[in-house]
Amino acid sequence: MTTTAFIGLGAMGFPMAAHLARQAQQQGGPALVWNRTPGKSEAHAAQYGTVGASLPEIAQADLLFTCLPTSAEVEEVMAQLTPHLKRGLIWVDCTSGHPDAARRQRTQLAERGVSFLDAPVSGGTGGAEAGTLTVMLGGPAGEVEAVRPHLAFAGKAVHVGDTGAGFAVKAINNVLLAVNLWAAGEGLAALARHDVNVSAALEVINASSGRSNASQNLIPQRVVTREFPCTFALGLLAKDCGIAVDVVNGVGGSAPLLAQTAALFRAAATAIGAGADHTAALKLIEQMNAQEIK
Amino acid sequence: MTTTAFIGLGAMGFPMAAHLARQAQQQGGPALVWNRTPGKSEAHAAQYGTVGASLPEIAQADLLFTCLPTSAEVEEVMAQLTPHLKRGLIWVDCTSGHPDAARRQRTQLAERGVSFLDAPVSGGTGGAEAGTLTVMLGGPAGEVEAVRPHLAFAGKAVHVGDTGAGFAVKAINNVLLAVNLWAAGEGLAALARHDVNVSAALEVINASSGRSNASQNLIPQRVVTREFPCTFALGLLAKDCGIAVDVVNGVGGSAPLLAQTAALFRAAATAIGAGADHTAALKLIEQMNAQEIK
Amino acid sequence: MTTTAFIGLGAMGFPMAAHLARQAQQQGGPALVWNRTPGKSEAHAAQYGTVGASLPEIAQADLLFTCLPTSAEVEEVMAQLTPHLKRGLIWVDCTSGHPDAARRQRTQLAERGVSFLDAPVSGGTGGAEAGTLTVMLGGPAGEVEAVRPHLAFAGKAVHVGDTGAGFAVKAINNVLLAVNLWAAGEGLAALARHDVNVSAALEVINASSGRSNASQNLIPQRVVTREFPCTFALGLLAKDCGIAVDVVNGVGGSAPLLAQTAALFRAAATAIGAGADHTAALKLIEQMNAQEIK
Amino acid sequence: MTTTAFIGLGAMGFPMAAHLARQAQQQGGPALVWNRTPGKSEAHAAQYGTVGASLPEIAQADLLFTCLPTSAEVEEVMAQLTPHLKRGLIWVDCTSGHPDAARRQRTQLAERGVSFLDAPVSGGTGGAEAGTLTVMLGGPAGEVEAVRPHLAFAGKAVHVGDTGAGFAVKAINNVLLAVNLWAAGEGLAALARHDVNVSAALEVINASSGRSNASQNLIPQRVVTREFPCTFALGLLAKDCGIAVDVVNGVGGSAPLLAQTAALFRAAATAIGAGADHTAALKLIEQMNAQEIK
Repeated sequence: MTTTAFIGLGAMGFPMAAHLARQAQQQGGPALVWNRTPGKSEAHAAQYGTVGASLPEIAQADLLFTCLPTSAEVEEVMAQLTPHLKRGLIWVDCTSGHPDAARRQRTQLAERGVSFLDAPVSGGTGGAEAGTLTVMLGGPAGEVEAVRPHLAFAGKAVHVGDTGAGFAVKAINNVLLAVNLWAAGEGLAALARHDVNVSAALEVINASSGRSNASQNLIPQRVVTREFPCTFALGLLAKDCGIAVDVVNGVGGSAPLLAQTAALFRAAATAIGAGADHTAALKLIEQMNAQEIK
Repeated sequence: MTTTAFIGLGAMGFPMAAHLARQAQQQGGPALVWNRTPGKSEAHAAQYGTVGASLPEIAQADLLFTCLPTSAEVEEVMAQLTPHLKRGLIWVDCTSGHPDAARRQRTQLAERGVSFLDAPVSGGTGGAEAGTLTVMLGGPAGEVEAVRPHLAFAGKAVHVGDTGAGFAVKAINNVLLAVNLWAAGEGLAALARHDVNVSAALEVINASSGRSNASQNLIPQRVVTREFPCTFALGLLAKDCGIAVDVVNGVGGSAPLLAQTAALFRAAATAIGAGADHTAALKLIEQMNAQEIK
Repeated sequence: MTTTAFIGLGAMGFPMAAHLARQAQQQGGPALVWNRTPGKSEAHAAQYGTVGASLPEIAQADLLFTCLPTSAEVEEVMAQLTPHLKRGLIWVDCTSGHPDAARRQRTQLAERGVSFLDAPVSGGTGGAEAGTLTVMLGGPAGEVEAVRPHLAFAGKAVHVGDTGAGFAVKAINNVLLAVNLWAAGEGLAALARHDVNVSAALEVINASSGRSNASQNLIPQRVVTREFPCTFALGLLAKDCGIAVDVVNGVGGSAPLLAQTAALFRAAATAIGAGADHTAALKLIEQMNAQEIK
Repeated sequence: MTTTAFIGLGAMGFPMAAHLARQAQQQGGPALVWNRTPGKSEAHAAQYGTVGASLPEIAQADLLFTCLPTSAEVEEVMAQLTPHLKRGLIWVDCTSGHPDAARRQRTQLAERGVSFLDAPVSGGTGGAEAGTLTVMLGGPAGEVEAVRPHLAFAGKAVHVGDTGAGFAVKAINNVLLAVNLWAAGEGLAALARHDVNVSAALEVINASSGRSNASQNLIPQRVVTREFPCTFALGLLAKDCGIAVDVVNGVGGSAPLLAQTAALFRAAATAIGAGADHTAALKLIEQMNAQEIK
C-alpha cells in the first residue's frame, strides 16, 4: 500500500492532487495534502477525501509530489521536511524549477536515502483539471520508470534526460512560449497600425507557416478579447525565461534571441506587473507602439 | 468567357497555374502561361493543356496572376507588359511582395485602366499542389470579392485590408516563422549540449505551450533528419524578414525581436548560403554553439 | 563675388549661418537667409547682418546650404526652389538626411545644372556656435574640394565617399551614439539596483575600457543631474537610427545590435515623447527596471 | 614591516607584482610571488628581486594580492591556502571575478579571521606596466581605506560599494566595452559595403558623438590593421559579459542590449576562438556580412 502526499495546492496543484487522490483511493492508499495556507488543504480534503497532514506526517509518505512557484519554495519546505524524511521516499518535484537546484536537491536527499526526480508539467490549469498534462522527467531511467504509473495527472510523460533535464526542457519550452507570444505581439501591433484587421491577420497566420500556440490560442482568447485572465502569472514566466538563460549559459551556449526575450519579459513584469497574466506582457508592446492589439 | 494568364512557373507557380487552368478549362476559357525560361511553359502546356504565350498576348487576358521571387521581378515584367495591357484587366499578384511596391503598382496600373490586387499565398509547395493555399488579399473589398471565385489554388482566402495589406500580413507571417524557427533552434542547441535528447525534447514541447509550426513540422522533418530539403530558399525568407522590418518601420513601430531576427536571417543567408533551405539558417546557430541540433 | 544662402535657422542652423555670413562679409559677398517661420530670419538679419530673402531670391545664390530636420523637409523646399534655380548653383545639404534621398536629389538637380553634396554635421549646438563642427562630405572629389574653403562652421571636414556617403556615415555615427548611450543606461540601472553609487561607477568606467562619449559627457551632464536639457530631440535620434538600419539593409548587411537599438529608441520616442532630449530615452530603461539612474 | 604576496603572474599580474615589490622594498618588507607554473615566479624573482614562495609561505603574508583568469581559479587556490592562512591577513583580489564568488569568499575567509576585498583593475597590460591602472574596490569603507596606500600599480582607485561591487562594476565596464566594440564593427562593415573608406569614417566618428574607446583606440589599432594582437582574450571578455548578465539578473533587472551582446560574444568565442584577441570578435561580424572591416 502506497501513501501518496502532495505539497502545493495552487491553481495547478489543486486539481493535480485530486487526480493522484483518486488513483490512490482506488488502490486503497491514503492521500495526504499540505499547503502553506491551511484553508486550501481543508478545502481539498472536503472535496476529494484527501487528508490534511502536517509536514512531519507528509515526510513519512512513500511518494511525495511538490508543485510550488519556484525552487526557492521547494528548498524552504525541504529544510522543514529533512529531519523527518522516511528512507526510501521518492520525491517528484512538479515545480517549474531550476536545473541547478534539482542537482543540489538530489544530492542532499540522497544522503538521507531519499530519491528526487524533476518532473515539471505543461498544459495549464485546463490540462491539470482534465488530467492530460505533459510531464518532462529528469533522473535515472530506472527511477523514472518506477514513478511513471503513478502520474495520474498526465496525458503524456517523457523521460528527457538526467537530473535537471526535466527542468531544463520546461524552461526552454516556456521561453519558446514567451518568444512566440512576444513576436506575434510585435507583428500584430505593426499590422494594426497599418489598419489591418487583427483577427483577419490571425486567421491567415494560423492557417500559415507562422502559426504557434501563442497565435492560435493565447492571443485570440486573451489579448484580442482584452480579458487577460490570470492563469499563469507574468512574473512566473519571466522567472522561467531567466532559468532558460541560465540553461544556455550553463553550457557556454549562445542564444541571442532567447536572451533578448528574457530581458523583455523581465521588463514587462516590472512595468506591467508580475501578478498579471503572462499574455499581459503584450501591454508593454502596446506602450512601445502606442497601439492596442485588437 | 474569361481568359486567364499566369506568369512565373516556379515551385509554387507551376502547380498553382495547373489549378487555375483546370478551372478555366471547365468554364471554357483559355489559360495562358509565361515563364522567363520558356522550357517551363512548354512543360506546363504539355502537362496541363495550357498555352505558352508571349507577353503581349498575356497582356490581353482578363485575369492575370503573377508569382515571382520578389517585387523587383514583378516590376520588370510590368515594364514589358505595360504598353500592351488591355483596359479592364485584373492583375492578382501572388508574389511575396513589398507593400510599397503594391501601392506604386496599383497607382501606375490604374492609369491604364488595370486593377491590381496583392494576394500572396502560404502553404508551401505541398499546399500549392493540393490546391489548399491560404491567400491574403489586399485591395478594395469589391475587387477582392470579384476575384475570390477564381482562386482555384486556395483552401482559404481572407481579405485583410487595403492595397499592400496582403503583402504586409505575408511578411509578418514569414518573420514569425523565422522567429519561431530560430528560437527553437537556439533552445534545442542548448538542450543538446546538456545531453538532452532533441527528439524527446521536441516531443514534449510539441505537446506543450511552446509549440509552433517550426517545432512541430520543420525541425523534426528537416533539421533533425539533417536533410534540409530546399523548398523555400533561405535568401527569400531573409528578404521577407526585411519586408517585415520595413512594414514595422513604415508606421513608426517598434519591434526589437523581429528586427534582431531579420538581422540574424540576413547573416545566415550570407554565411550559410541564400540558396539553401530556410531551415538551414539553424546551421549558423550550430556554429555559434559548436553543437549539432539532432 | 559669391552669394551665399542658408535655409533652416534652427538650433544648429542659426549659428552655422552666422559663421557663413561672417566669412561672406569678409569677402564682400551677400549672405541670404530663409526660414519657414519668418521671425527667425528677421532675428538673424538683425543680429548678423544677413538678408532675409524669398525662396526665388535664394534660388539665385551661388552656394546654398540647407539644415533641416529630415530629408522630407529638404524635398519640400526643393520643390519650391526648383523652378527658380540658377544653373551652376552648388547645394550643400547639412541635414542629417537619408542616403537614398541624396542620390535622388543629386540626380534631379543635375537635370537643372545644379550640383548637390550631402554634408551632415556633428558636434551639437556647442560646436555650431564655436564653429568647430565635424562635416562628413559625400559626392565627387572635385566638387567636395571646391566647397571645402566655404565651410566656415567646420573644425574638421572629411570626404567620406560618393553621394549619400556623408548621410550614411552620419547615420552610423548617431546609431553608435544611441547604442553607447542605451547600453550604459542598462548597465548603470543594474548597478544602481545593487546599491553601487552611479557617479563612482561612471568615474571608473570613464577611466577604463568601457568609456564612450555617452558615459563621459551625456550621462553625467544630462541623466545623473536629471536635467535632460533638450538640445537634440529623441524623435530625431530615433529617425537617424532608422536611417542607419536602412543603410545596413540597403547593402544586404546584418547588424543585429544596431537593429535592436533602433527599435528600442523608436519605442522610447513613442513612450517617453519624441520632443524630449535624446538622453531621456533612458527613462524607458528606468521604467523597465523600476530604478532611477542617479 | 608588511609582507606582501602576489599570486598570478600573467600578462597583467607580472607587471602589477613588480610595482608592489618596488614599494615593499622601499619600505623594507619582503615581496613573495607564486604562480602555477613556477618558471614565471623564478623569472619575476630574477627580474624584480621578489621571492618565489610556496603557498603555505604565501599564506603567512600580511597582504595578499591575487590576479587570476576567473573566480574559479581563485577558489582553487583558496582551497589550498585555507589551512595555512594567518589571522589578520588582508586578501585583495584583482581578478575580474564574480560578485557572488566575492560574497562567498568573504564569508568563508571571515571565519578564519581573514579579510577579503574585490579589487578588479582596468587599463590593460599598458596600464599595468605604467602603474596607472584603475582599481574598483568593493568592501567595507574602513578596509578599503586601509588597503588604498598599498595599491602601487594604480593610477586611480575608487571605492564603488560593498563586497562584490568592484566585480560588478568591472563586469559592467567590460560589457560596455563589448557593446561599443561590436556596434562599431557592425556599423563599419555596413559602411565598407557602401564603399565608404573605413579610416575616414572612423576619423569623423571619433570627432563626433558616436565615439568610444573602441572606435578611438581598439578598432584603428587592432582591427583595421588586421593585427588583432592578443592582449586580452576573447574568451575572457565573453566570460565577463556573462558575469554582467548575472549582475543584471541577480537584481531582477532588464538589459536587452547587454543580454544580446553577451550572447554574440559567446558565439564569437566559440566560432572564432576563445584564445584570440577580444577584438577578433569582429571577425564573426565580417562573416555575417561577407565584408572585411578595413
